[in-house]
Amino acid sequence: MTLSLNSPISESPQADYPAIGTRPWPGLIETYRPFLPVTDATPIVSLCEGNTPLIRVPAIAERVGRSVQVFVKYDGLNPTGSFKDRGMTLAISKAKEMGAEAVICASTGNTSAAAAAYARRGGLRAFVIIPDGYVAMGKLAQALLYGAEVLAIQGNFDQALTMVRQLAEHYPVTLVNSINPFRLEGQKTAAFEVVDVLGDAPDWLCIPVGNAGNITAYWMGFCEYHQQERCQRLPRMMGFQAAGAAPMVLNHTVTHPETVATAIRIGNPANRDRARAVQEASQGEFSAVTDEEILAAYRLLAAEEGIFCEPASAASVAGLLKVKDRVPAGATVVCVLTGNGLKDPDTAIKHSQNQVKGGLPADLETLAGVMGF
Amino acid sequence: MTLSLNSPISESPQADYPAIGTRPWPGLIETYRPFLPVTDATPIVSLCEGNTPLIRVPAIAERVGRSVQVFVKYDGLNPTGSFKDRGMTLAISKAKEMGAEAVICASTGNTSAAAAAYARRGGLRAFVIIPDGYVAMGKLAQALLYGAEVLAIQGNFDQALTMVRQLAEHYPVTLVNSINPFRLEGQKTAAFEVVDVLGDAPDWLCIPVGNAGNITAYWMGFCEYHQQERCQRLPRMMGFQAAGAAPMVLNHTVTHPETVATAIRIGNPANRDRARAVQEASQGEFSAVTDEEILAAYRLLAAEEGIFCEPASAASVAGLLKVKDRVPAGATVVCVLTGNGLKDPDTAIKHSQNQVKGGLPADLETLAGVMGF
Repeated sequence: MTLSLNSPISESPQADYPAIGTRPWPGLIETYRPFLPVTDATPIVSLCEGNTPLIRVPAIAERVGRSVQVFVKYDGLNPTGSFKDRGMTLAISKAKEMGAEAVICASTGNTSAAAAAYARRGGLRAFVIIPDGYVAMGKLAQALLYGAEVLAIQGNFDQALTMVRQLAEHYPVTLVNSINPFRLEGQKTAAFEVVDVLGDAPDWLCIPVGNAGNITAYWMGFCEYHQQERCQRLPRMMGFQAAGAAPMVLNHTVTHPETVATAIRIGNPANRDRARAVQEASQGEFSAVTDEEILAAYRLLAAEEGIFCEPASAASVAGLLKVKDRVPAGATVVCVLTGNGLKDPDTAIKHSQNQVKGGLPADLETLAGVMGF
Repeated sequence: MTLSLNSPISESPQADYPAIGTRPWPGLIETYRPFLPVTDATPIVSLCEGNTPLIRVPAIAERVGRSVQVFVKYDGLNPTGSFKDRGMTLAISKAKEMGAEAVICASTGNTSAAAAAYARRGGLRAFVIIPDGYVAMGKLAQALLYGAEVLAIQGNFDQALTMVRQLAEHYPVTLVNSINPFRLEGQKTAAFEVVDVLGDAPDWLCIPVGNAGNITAYWMGFCEYHQQERCQRLPRMMGFQAAGAAPMVLNHTVTHPETVATAIRIGNPANRDRARAVQEASQGEFSAVTDEEILAAYRLLAAEEGIFCEPASAASVAGLLKVKDRVPAGATVVCVLTGNGLKDPDTAIKHSQNQVKGGLPADLETLAGVMGF
């Protein structure tokens, strides 16, 4: 698909825009009900997640050149600040349908926040298991405020994962970690939204890859829409990992993954095989980007496009810029921004390369001089 | 207006819901163009702001009782995390139309973040003046990452305000502080969205009041829609201030305003007279809520509704709960949540009244016991 350079998306109203104003957005389960494993008996637990903006990013498109059109899918504007809400609305709704009174996950970040918010909204208890002494309070602020019961165990993250699996097996508590199958079913709706707005699938989808669930879910979404003839094409799925945590690129597990992009600091992806199949089916690729490239894209998105995302999210844009010469002329590219930059203010402060100019007198001419007037 | 208890809003699809899927949201200027002071010559600087969810809050409605229906307008899901984006998309677009190459504001919070994001997206320089030694870095992380040029002057916040006014008067830099008239014009679109979703204005609008601009803007929006017969009624405007910063309630300036709700810690509201007129015209009220009440509502929103807002935002819900016995039976109430809770993680940590249970062994039965199984 080739949109004209003056395409109306996100810049001017559609010709078929029915009327002034918005319309109720009932959340993604109600919106995409025919595509999701729900029935009239499913109690829908929703925070009106989804419907996140697809934003044109001209400064990035200019760097790619050759009339390529670039958009970001800003999923950091979901209710808890990340794409995890898409999977969690479904996982919690299904858990409730099956009579669960509690859910559990091992997570220190976006998953625990989403699990806690949706569980509590649905009247369920939310347990979060973390390794003791390992997790900064800032990362847990959301889950704690949402009312999660956070238990820190002696051991590492793998042991925390083992414990949540065993607890879910032996006690009446539903696992909502990434192996919960409803998570990906919910996440695939992001692909639906992209197609609904663009009118077709993009030529390329650039996406950060950690546990490799989201790339799998997007592909499920594009394929289902394609089968229903809601899109005419399927995108190349371009997955980007941090160089220090790139098991899909290296094709082997990384024992000690390291990257500033904590949300994709994963050495042994749960969805490794499915993501490999996606790459092959879509003629896509997995590539690595360095932390420096990720941070440069992170700053570029903020300072030239006005978009503040999590460092991990910027891997999709860093990746696009890295392989930009191979994007077909005139192609349409969507980069997925998975989380809100407000989730990680420390990185913003540490890596903004910008600082306050202090100690200035409250004097008009002095200030004007500092400002360059 | 009385919606039925099983009203479809945010819970099931509308009967007239045209088709599966979302539609492009081009941002609020394009959406509400006929109501805004823009022309074909205005270069629209947009991040697809607006279209924020109106979320049903049943746990709060239950506390109000008598079949009152309560929604929150969650404006923290705007691109920079607060309602300020609504005004800033218009203020920056108009500044650019008038040939500005730089904008300036005195702000330590949401305004500086929004100003920086929109200015940089529009290719303008963004200056932020703050009092030296007064502002925590965390509050400035967003503005710095967005590429604002932050100047700290010797003096207090009033002197910073004086300096930005003088700089805007004498040099080629456009003031985007609250006295910029386009700010309120943009903010009024939140009222449009509420009406578009509900089908009419609510019976009550509960809103936090600091500088008193947003209550003024909402009223402008309801009145314009009413004149165009897009709503049949006008709401009572119920403004809530923090008890330590309640000039509209006390009817005099507060010299040293103090409250945990920093976004409404204002002792001398810029829009005092206009907000007073709104209160009178709408038969509304200004009331004060204590920090304890604000924090209780903040925790309630998170732990029972799954919604994480700024402390100042929770003043609207705290206020509703304070005067709940006076809400007419069956009425529809909208509480405005102005900002995202992720803006202020320190408050979440300090006031969640929840904590990690640490030092637990990685042992199945011990953990099950702690969990109550």
